[in-house]
Amino acid sequence: MAMKVYNEELSANCYKVRLLSALLDIPVEYVSVDFANGAHKKSPIIDLNPFGQLPILEDGDVVVRDSQAILIYLARKFGGEAWFPTEPASMARVAQWLMVAENEIARGPADARRHDKFGRKLDIDEARAAARHILTIMDRHLEKRQWLALGRPTIADVACMPYVALSGEGGVPLDPYPAVSAWVERIKKLPRFVGMPGH
Amino acid sequence: MAMKVYNEELSANCYKVRLLSALLDIPVEYVSVDFANGAHKKSPIIDLNPFGQLPILEDGDVVVRDSQAILIYLARKFGGEAWFPTEPASMARVAQWLMVAENEIARGPADARRHDKFGRKLDIDEARAAARHILTIMDRHLEKRQWLALGRPTIADVACMPYVALSGEGGVPLDPYPAVSAWVERIKKLPRFVGMPGH
Repeated sequence: MAMKVYNEELSANCYKVRLLSALLDIPVEYVSVDFANGAHKKSPIIDLNPFGQLPILEDGDVVVRDSQAILIYLARKFGGEAWFPTEPASMARVAQWLMVAENEIARGPADARRHDKFGRKLDIDEARAAARHILTIMDRHLEKRQWLALGRPTIADVACMPYVALSGEGGVPLDPYPAVSAWVERIKKLPRFVGMPGH
Repeated sequence: MAMKVYNEELSANCYKVRLLSALLDIPVEYVSVDFANGAHKKSPIIDLNPFGQLPILEDGDVVVRDSQAILIYLARKFGGEAWFPTEPASMARVAQWLMVAENEIARGPADARRHDKFGRKLDIDEARAAARHILTIMDRHLEKRQWLALGRPTIADVACMPYVALSGEGGVPLDPYPAVSAWVERIKKLPRFVGMPGH
């Protein structure tokens, strides 16, 4: 039975899973969810994920919610030691950027885009300030590095890139962050890369 | 050279690291940081962690920031397969709760406590609503389970418990969530458990 991913084309969280699946050439059956009409907040989708969020991965009797956790699952199952290594220091170096995707990027560029593009009610000034703060940290970090966590692409890059690349859709363009922009372009040149609407 | 953790007693993020170190009997040298005077926002601490946050772990030339990433490091280095297993489905089941600690719990009970206890300016109604939402999901999840992710305690429980147990300090007491309360008490009975101020 093919692995299923419950998917929404405009969701950058769903796109992370599509991107890693493409890069690692993993066969996935995408199930479109009627996000605009709130199908993810109703049965049967909410029974798979009580958080009412996409993406959701279903692989036989294994169900995984949260885009970062799904990246971990796919990387461990299909990526060998390359994309989420088991050696403690390397794993922690990747993991700390997964946490940035889950927290600082979610509260920054992702929230700003949710406000501007999808009409979500939130403090837009705070979200944009948070976006500029994390982009400044990332730009300084990437001035001396090709990839976020290790000397090669990992799921840290896959987790952090999508909302960062879409930051302009939340009113925070990437122009003042040249090292971040160069890193986004580097990811786009990876073999088997696929884009998403807006990139 | 002993492993160092830059620490602040009242930080529940720092407490997660103290708790796992105690449970796994890991020798750690705690370095007190003058948090009230912003020492974590200045050199030399900010040179270790550009995010200006605690805790920070320093183990020889390995530096790890973010409490969840530090739990991963300690569990992989000292916990064998028990606390953060490498099998893909089990790892993902633990990881998805680490992401809840990083996102829903941070935006819910942790933000509410930051507002009430530390005077942080934020939308307290939104933080408390987020706290009630995640506590409701967790309570339903824990009605049928002893531990969050697997049939035993893992770093998922260590990551999620501290801010949940302190939820009352942000104006959202745990009384309406009996399964969550029972789970907190279960963690407190683990061998070598240590508490934190307010628990």
